[in-house]
Amino acid sequence: MGEFRKEDYIAQLSIDCVIFGYNNNELKVLISKLSYGEDLWSLPGGFILQTESIDQAASRILMERTGLDNIYLEQFRAFGSPDRIIGSEYREVVRAGLRDFAAKKFDDEAIDWVTSRFVCIGYYALVDLNKVDPKIGEFEEFLKWVSIEDLPNMTHDHNEIVEEAHKSLRQNLDEKLIGFNLLPEEFTMREIKELYEAIYDKEFPMNNFQKKILGLDVLERLGKKYTGAQNRAPYIYKFKK
Amino acid sequence: MGEFRKEDYIAQLSIDCVIFGYNNNELKVLISKLSYGEDLWSLPGGFILQTESIDQAASRILMERTGLDNIYLEQFRAFGSPDRIIGSEYREVVRAGLRDFAAKKFDDEAIDWVTSRFVCIGYYALVDLNKVDPKIGEFEEFLKWVSIEDLPNMTHDHNEIVEEAHKSLRQNLDEKLIGFNLLPEEFTMREIKELYEAIYDKEFPMNNFQKKILGLDVLERLGKKYTGAQNRAPYIYKFKK
Repeated sequence: MGEFRKEDYIAQLSIDCVIFGYNNNELKVLISKLSYGEDLWSLPGGFILQTESIDQAASRILMERTGLDNIYLEQFRAFGSPDRIIGSEYREVVRAGLRDFAAKKFDDEAIDWVTSRFVCIGYYALVDLNKVDPKIGEFEEFLKWVSIEDLPNMTHDHNEIVEEAHKSLRQNLDEKLIGFNLLPEEFTMREIKELYEAIYDKEFPMNNFQKKILGLDVLERLGKKYTGAQNRAPYIYKFKK
Repeated sequence: MGEFRKEDYIAQLSIDCVIFGYNNNELKVLISKLSYGEDLWSLPGGFILQTESIDQAASRILMERTGLDNIYLEQFRAFGSPDRIIGSEYREVVRAGLRDFAAKKFDDEAIDWVTSRFVCIGYYALVDLNKVDPKIGEFEEFLKWVSIEDLPNMTHDHNEIVEEAHKSLRQNLDEKLIGFNLLPEEFTMREIKELYEAIYDKEFPMNNFQKKILGLDVLERLGKKYTGAQNRAPYIYKFKK
């Protein structure tokens, strides 16, 4: 990627991605430590080319910024307060950092462009944390999976964006579950219950949960999972095609 | 409103409003016949001032374009295909129409601006059709409530925007119902059932519906509604505070 040509992009409109990673019964978020400022954290984000749709932009940005490819992204909300960066202390930090760090890519005019008011369209995804290997983009020192409760203060309104993404993830989760492709091909009732518990951050009693999830009529029961112990071998399920 | 100053607005980002009106067990949509072209129909929409949030812009646009004030608008999705107008036959019609009709307001540069690629943020509302009295904006010949099944072809992707708004309205309707303030202060079970039937476009058997809606625990039962006939006086309900 060479010099930044702002005329290739839509001005004042950005995309930010909330990548939820699930692993070991825990829900995490992928955030990046920006190279051009001390203690500057943000969601992976970027701008929209004049030639691409906003969905295409979201996928491209995610690929460029994190190395993650073929991820199903869901648009959930636009964020449009006029003071998302204007008036925020971050603006001067970002300006100074960009001037310093990215002088070859951003001239003064481009820095004004990048730090002007932006409306942001939020996308989120849910991935198996073990199956992805994020690669840093050119403005990142490193990327990090952080538990949703332990997020640092991020630039702009990115903490609020994560909260809203989490709300959207919880809404109609039953319908989204298959699309996210998050469980192994075959899984036990306990495994799917643990996934729900991580996302809703509460425990579900097994009996009620099993009744509810079987009621959705999306699971096919296969055999039992024999582990050597004779008792309590759990049933194995997969999603119906 | 005087001459249009494009520098007051965010470029390439618009807002469109889907106003659902409910009346006589029917769901309608408020659309406008544009003044500057034959058979040009569109949703009420407009642009975002540099100084206002996108929510504020949505309310202001709705007020300016339809005379509707204090309407609860819900953001539901952004639409961002690069060919929403570029490449569409509408673009030249709109350009010619604006040049003709709005020459005082739009010079050539402004017409280029207005007919460039836009990403649109969609908002919808649900109102009691009888309680509102839309007033036309400056580019409208007239506004019209049209049944959702009988919408004409509209400019851009506005028909698709209505479809998506309708989907969003149906999602989690139970939670939204009170906020929309659509029923009279006191109502019967039949009245709330008819509202659901209009929105979902199907009939709900009374027994099941009543069980479901009472299960939400949002209704307070008042007395019976006596209409003179001794039998079958229905109960009256209101929403719990």
